[in-house]
Amino acid sequence: MINMSKIKRVVIVGGTHGNEITGIYLVKKFERSPHLIQRSSFEALTLLGNPQAYAIGKRYVDTDLNRCFLPEDLENPNLTSYETQRAKIIYQTFSSQGSQPADFVIDLHSSTANMGLTIILASQHQFNLQLAAYLASINPKVKILYSRSRNQERPHLDSICEFGCTVEVGAIAQGILDAGLFQETEEIVHAILDYLAAYNQGNPPPRKDKLSVYQSIQTIDYPRNESGEIEAMIHPQLQFRDYQPLHPGEPIFLTFDGKEIVYEGDSVVYPVFINEAAYYEKGIAMCITEIINQNLVQDEG
Amino acid sequence: MINMSKIKRVVIVGGTHGNEITGIYLVKKFERSPHLIQRSSFEALTLLGNPQAYAIGKRYVDTDLNRCFLPEDLENPNLTSYETQRAKIIYQTFSSQGSQPADFVIDLHSSTANMGLTIILASQHQFNLQLAAYLASINPKVKILYSRSRNQERPHLDSICEFGCTVEVGAIAQGILDAGLFQETEEIVHAILDYLAAYNQGNPPPRKDKLSVYQSIQTIDYPRNESGEIEAMIHPQLQFRDYQPLHPGEPIFLTFDGKEIVYEGDSVVYPVFINEAAYYEKGIAMCITEIINQNLVQDEG
Repeated sequence: MINMSKIKRVVIVGGTHGNEITGIYLVKKFERSPHLIQRSSFEALTLLGNPQAYAIGKRYVDTDLNRCFLPEDLENPNLTSYETQRAKIIYQTFSSQGSQPADFVIDLHSSTANMGLTIILASQHQFNLQLAAYLASINPKVKILYSRSRNQERPHLDSICEFGCTVEVGAIAQGILDAGLFQETEEIVHAILDYLAAYNQGNPPPRKDKLSVYQSIQTIDYPRNESGEIEAMIHPQLQFRDYQPLHPGEPIFLTFDGKEIVYEGDSVVYPVFINEAAYYEKGIAMCITEIINQNLVQDEG
Repeated sequence: MINMSKIKRVVIVGGTHGNEITGIYLVKKFERSPHLIQRSSFEALTLLGNPQAYAIGKRYVDTDLNRCFLPEDLENPNLTSYETQRAKIIYQTFSSQGSQPADFVIDLHSSTANMGLTIILASQHQFNLQLAAYLASINPKVKILYSRSRNQERPHLDSICEFGCTVEVGAIAQGILDAGLFQETEEIVHAILDYLAAYNQGNPPPRKDKLSVYQSIQTIDYPRNESGEIEAMIHPQLQFRDYQPLHPGEPIFLTFDGKEIVYEGDSVVYPVFINEAAYYEKGIAMCITEIINQNLVQDEG
């Protein structure tokens, strides 16, 4: 057992991006039926992350809310856009110094990439790793991703707590619901809550002692011309093949004139977030990951 | 041969909806390489339908441009939103009374529904039907759709010409390119242009003398509560099954609590535009069609 105190408050966030409506409709469901997320040993709250963006059917109003949580930005009084202010409110409410400090955050997202059921860890704390190992053990579709290397600050909403994760499901278009993915996302939320309840009782469920984690090592942008316009698309052989091995020399892009562009790395990698709609403007055609086999601290019983 | 004059000018439109970028990038490609769309007997022009909506990554700025082409709206000086003005400009340019009258319009769209390669006919003129029969004969993936009944005015951009069609490809998320769909859309544009060139030479290519057309007969909205909020999702058994037969009693929706809602019609129908993202706000979960077997006028040789 990891030596830490109990989980007293969990916050479940949907709509950090206003057009990823799976999480929004799950939060609405939990608000109608709060008993679904209550467990005897902790309080569970819900939050609609970016209500203005949801109202206009966009990812964000002014700037991406899920990049607004760096400590220096939260403390910067000169940042006054809608999302930077919203981030400050969320932080001032749910962070450890907040008015309703949360011990664990679940942030629900979706992607146009074929992310399946991805758990993005908010930190590499053993507590998060052990939860991830549990989720992967009960559902083989679950993939575990670190989006940042160990020493980088994360600007994501889930960084308001040391413990927590982002749930990233796909492939699904922005602005729609997919009943199957909705149900699978809900099952993951319940599995997390059940795990936290069992942890609080000193009895976390069994799990494997090793965990394969996909760690992001770089991003690859689309080929672009001098004006910044893209000159190629994701290659059909790569489309929807998130988490599949990509070998050096295999095609990753196809130009509008039909020319193939190959991956020029020198080892096998595992691309994720392939053709995510929201990342065209961020200069990201895909994120390249490698697999890390993570050993877990064992419970002492 | 139908007794009508030759096609002298074709206009190819992309981005009538600013977040359907397949057509936008095809138009950009044709603008870089205009020889691709030139044929000796007619002029081919390109048009970016809604550049402001493309700039902000949305379907539209103020209102759906593809619902702005009713004659009474085009003549109404009180309609001054961006899209109603844009519609007037497009009409004043390319309609038969315009400054550069077009004889044929191709309007390129995409859908989050599994529309495959759909040709939506601008009118049921024999010329359009014969072109459709040709496209269906060279590619079995092509489906032919009438979106309106015979006596209704169509508010769509392609109604600026008597001859023309909307090309609706999917399933694809808004805001992304799919290389396979991009290439298939381009092949359809080339097939249309080649057909028009052959027609101009008095030598339209052979085609079947019967054509199956899917005619829209009604739309079905999501179940909604008193506030207008949806209470169910497309049923997993129906998702992506556009153009497949739907029998009375088969499930079409699944509520957020997991209850099935079945189709209550009394005959087999063929739903299309199932789970189109842009139609949530229009109150359309799917369009119900029936198949009409259309006899074609034969060439007299």
